[in-house]
Amino acid sequence: MGTCSYSTVLIGNGNVASHLGLALEQADHRVVRLGGRNRTVPIPRDADLYVIAVTDSAIASVAAEIGDVPGLVVHTAGSVPMSVLPQRRKGVLYPLQTFTKGRPVDMRSVPLFVESEGGEELLLHVASQLSDIVIPMDSERRRYLHLAAVFCNNFTNHMYRITEELLSQHDIPFEVMLPIIDETARKVHSLTPAQAQTGPAVRWNQSVMEAQQNLLEREDLRQLYQIISKSIHHDKLQSQQD
Amino acid sequence: MGTCSYSTVLIGNGNVASHLGLALEQADHRVVRLGGRNRTVPIPRDADLYVIAVTDSAIASVAAEIGDVPGLVVHTAGSVPMSVLPQRRKGVLYPLQTFTKGRPVDMRSVPLFVESEGGEELLLHVASQLSDIVIPMDSERRRYLHLAAVFCNNFTNHMYRITEELLSQHDIPFEVMLPIIDETARKVHSLTPAQAQTGPAVRWNQSVMEAQQNLLEREDLRQLYQIISKSIHHDKLQSQQD
Repeated sequence: MGTCSYSTVLIGNGNVASHLGLALEQADHRVVRLGGRNRTVPIPRDADLYVIAVTDSAIASVAAEIGDVPGLVVHTAGSVPMSVLPQRRKGVLYPLQTFTKGRPVDMRSVPLFVESEGGEELLLHVASQLSDIVIPMDSERRRYLHLAAVFCNNFTNHMYRITEELLSQHDIPFEVMLPIIDETARKVHSLTPAQAQTGPAVRWNQSVMEAQQNLLEREDLRQLYQIISKSIHHDKLQSQQD
Repeated sequence: MGTCSYSTVLIGNGNVASHLGLALEQADHRVVRLGGRNRTVPIPRDADLYVIAVTDSAIASVAAEIGDVPGLVVHTAGSVPMSVLPQRRKGVLYPLQTFTKGRPVDMRSVPLFVESEGGEELLLHVASQLSDIVIPMDSERRRYLHLAAVFCNNFTNHMYRITEELLSQHDIPFEVMLPIIDETARKVHSLTPAQAQTGPAVRWNQSVMEAQQNLLEREDLRQLYQIISKSIHHDKLQSQQD
């Protein structure tokens, strides 16, 4: 299959669709891009591959619309099981990355998690055209992967958001935090997160923790501070017992 | 003062002390290093600068031990006010970075927050010897700075820790998350955290959020998931009103 050029239908107009579309074209796929909704052209029947990159709740209806085709039909969602696809040849191609409009992403370094029924060989080949990191994973485990990604991407980004709010209330520019944000991310390349942890909670420095909670005006942030601090300390005690 | 070589006493044997000690030596200070506790040699009386880099609760007693000296006495803590130092010439030199034993840090790119009474000129000069980013900040605002750093460093690292726990429970190596961790940190160099946010909470995708909470076995993690998701959505609504 090394030299063949696939015809691929890509459905969706969000960030995942636009980044995947670019990578597929760079891998010499002949890509027909169709918007997620209000399509005026019919979906071609004879493509080798159909990639459904729409919002989670719309995947099943797009798949139903594609219907019974000879090609392989895959979706790209972390939390949606492969079984929502009614096709005989189906699969999942889940790229583990946060995609942003206008920010180029090096797809070759994005881990692609794949699963298929009736199209394993094709999907593995396409995935390896796009990325150096291709990992088979079934729907059950992929749910945990997506959950873990929510913690280390969305929830981490929210910690940055809270940081920015606290700083802006005291006229301190967010940029002063970029070196520590970068180093915090770099550290877990060579240390486990448990080894990398520092700060008042891991030392259980109660006077600092109490003073810091009192600085927080929002009740939900005080609660967050408390729960995360306890969780950090809980892990510390656990690791000492191990 | 450009060519003079300062004599500096550095007290402490933690990560901040060892990284600052190295940077001071590279800036040609004659550094006398003294451990935080159980010192067998007396503290010299004639140094230009005394840097107290010990744990927060020990700063006051070390400062009392130094006593009345002609040199400038500073501590390095984010949450401790300058006023704990009884000296006439005193100050704070707070490096905003996470220091780890054995990990070299480029001190020139570490923001140094400085405050002084009776030693402004000397402290600004020493800080500029060490770093390109020197920012005057009083004790009151520095408390918020330190609180913000707890969110974007300690709490972010705990998100990584939870990520690792979820993955290891399903035999998925933590390394697959490094590309998304790095990109999440990189994004806030050019987007605000609010602009950078993605995921189920910002879209308020209730079916995914409920399913994900049910995957979490630990009650504290379910609670954390809920509070952070609500907070993400709250910020989203706020930003739409602005």
